[in-house]
Amino acid sequence: MSISAEAPIGLFDSGVGGLTVLRALEARLPREHTVYLGDTARVPYGTRSAEVVTRYAQLNARYLASQGIKALVVACNTVSAHALPALTKSLPMPVVGVIEAGAQAAVKATRGGSIAVLGTPGTIASGAYQSALKRLAPLAPVIARACPLFVPLAEEGWTDGDVPRLVAERYLGDLRRSGVDTVVLGCTHYPLLAKTIAEVVGPKVSVVDGAEATAEACAQILSARTMLRPESPKAATSRVICTDLPERFRGVAERFLGRKTGEVELVDLAMT
Amino acid sequence: MSISAEAPIGLFDSGVGGLTVLRALEARLPREHTVYLGDTARVPYGTRSAEVVTRYAQLNARYLASQGIKALVVACNTVSAHALPALTKSLPMPVVGVIEAGAQAAVKATRGGSIAVLGTPGTIASGAYQSALKRLAPLAPVIARACPLFVPLAEEGWTDGDVPRLVAERYLGDLRRSGVDTVVLGCTHYPLLAKTIAEVVGPKVSVVDGAEATAEACAQILSARTMLRPESPKAATSRVICTDLPERFRGVAERFLGRKTGEVELVDLAMT
Repeated sequence: MSISAEAPIGLFDSGVGGLTVLRALEARLPREHTVYLGDTARVPYGTRSAEVVTRYAQLNARYLASQGIKALVVACNTVSAHALPALTKSLPMPVVGVIEAGAQAAVKATRGGSIAVLGTPGTIASGAYQSALKRLAPLAPVIARACPLFVPLAEEGWTDGDVPRLVAERYLGDLRRSGVDTVVLGCTHYPLLAKTIAEVVGPKVSVVDGAEATAEACAQILSARTMLRPESPKAATSRVICTDLPERFRGVAERFLGRKTGEVELVDLAMT
Repeated sequence: MSISAEAPIGLFDSGVGGLTVLRALEARLPREHTVYLGDTARVPYGTRSAEVVTRYAQLNARYLASQGIKALVVACNTVSAHALPALTKSLPMPVVGVIEAGAQAAVKATRGGSIAVLGTPGTIASGAYQSALKRLAPLAPVIARACPLFVPLAEEGWTDGDVPRLVAERYLGDLRRSGVDTVVLGCTHYPLLAKTIAEVVGPKVSVVDGAEATAEACAQILSARTMLRPESPKAATSRVICTDLPERFRGVAERFLGRKTGEVELVDLAMT
């Protein structure tokens, strides 16, 4: 079965975080239809083992594939760290992950200093960013830093003011004295805290947001396959789906996406 | 099949939080054998729907029942809010939840002022504490307050100092001017922040920890059934089990439990 350029791009994450990637994708490719799946029944993935994350990722990917997508964006650092080869192998359409794209953007941004990767404990412990950076820039010194409180702060909407500032200072204050010239936001929640993070690390440090890099990578892959949706009088559509508590999801989602989501669909992906 | 007084008491929670209840139970009933299950593969429960929480709770309870327990302590506010009747109905042994016990202790502590219940958004939205308090003390004014950042702060080990103090001030500062004389810690993580919470609400407010009340309720039920374990030259044993990432669990667990856990067992409770 050949897939049409009219087909939507699918994205998934464990919850709302990946909506920062959807937001970047809508800005880069405004003509594309999209389907976003947030696996809120199993959120968070960052504290789970590679095996469990891979099982959940396959469940999400199979569901999106059944919706007729032409490309899959893994809008989740944990899944990109643990399950990208398995997903690429099991799916017929191109699969784009956030880590490779973020690492490429970081290597472009650095001016010879150290690169600091910020992420959840799971992403940092996986070493996936560190490996990607080593492959792309073998000589660049890399510092990896887990920042567990950034996710709940972003979800609570406490993205500026004294609390996030103090938390960021505690996690990142020492980076000002460590030769870092580039910081990669290695978690899809962190763009909401980008301003606070930038203030704490100081004006000489580039803050790289992997979401934009991922949108760019997706655009290039679809363009190379002549699979970009052509101009059309019909507006692009956007479906947002989650696996538990759609009303609660919607409240946080609209802050992450920066626009109304419309109705959030509920789908049951119970393990079988 | 009759259950022996030598059988262990079972406890479960979505993760490490319920270990504050185990700690209180060990202090109150040091002779009892215990089996603690933390469902780390599905943590957290607080953001999930009542249906999903009930499904997970039944899975945990069935597993503990298969280990031959004589009583079940639901060491999780979310499960106590949503699934206690279902568990009580489906199990042959007595079932004790944290909410009823915590509400009773709060009603004993209040001196006629308002009672403030602190919990996760899920527990607060369920209204379970509010209902229990209304039943026990129909005229007591109740204030319910969701404090989502307390759980990640407790798990990160940031339990005193400027960050938790500022967060508590933001959630609770106004309680100093609202006639509250009793605060109930309606989440098993919150006892780790009890000192900071007490400082913020001020010296005139009683801070009630539901874990101790739950241990007392369990002691009374077993005593009434003459099911307390008799004195024995054999020391009490304690098993700690989780459903994902036992090593990670153990690191946080020892802080919550205030002692070494020994080896943490791993069990796979995949949905069937």
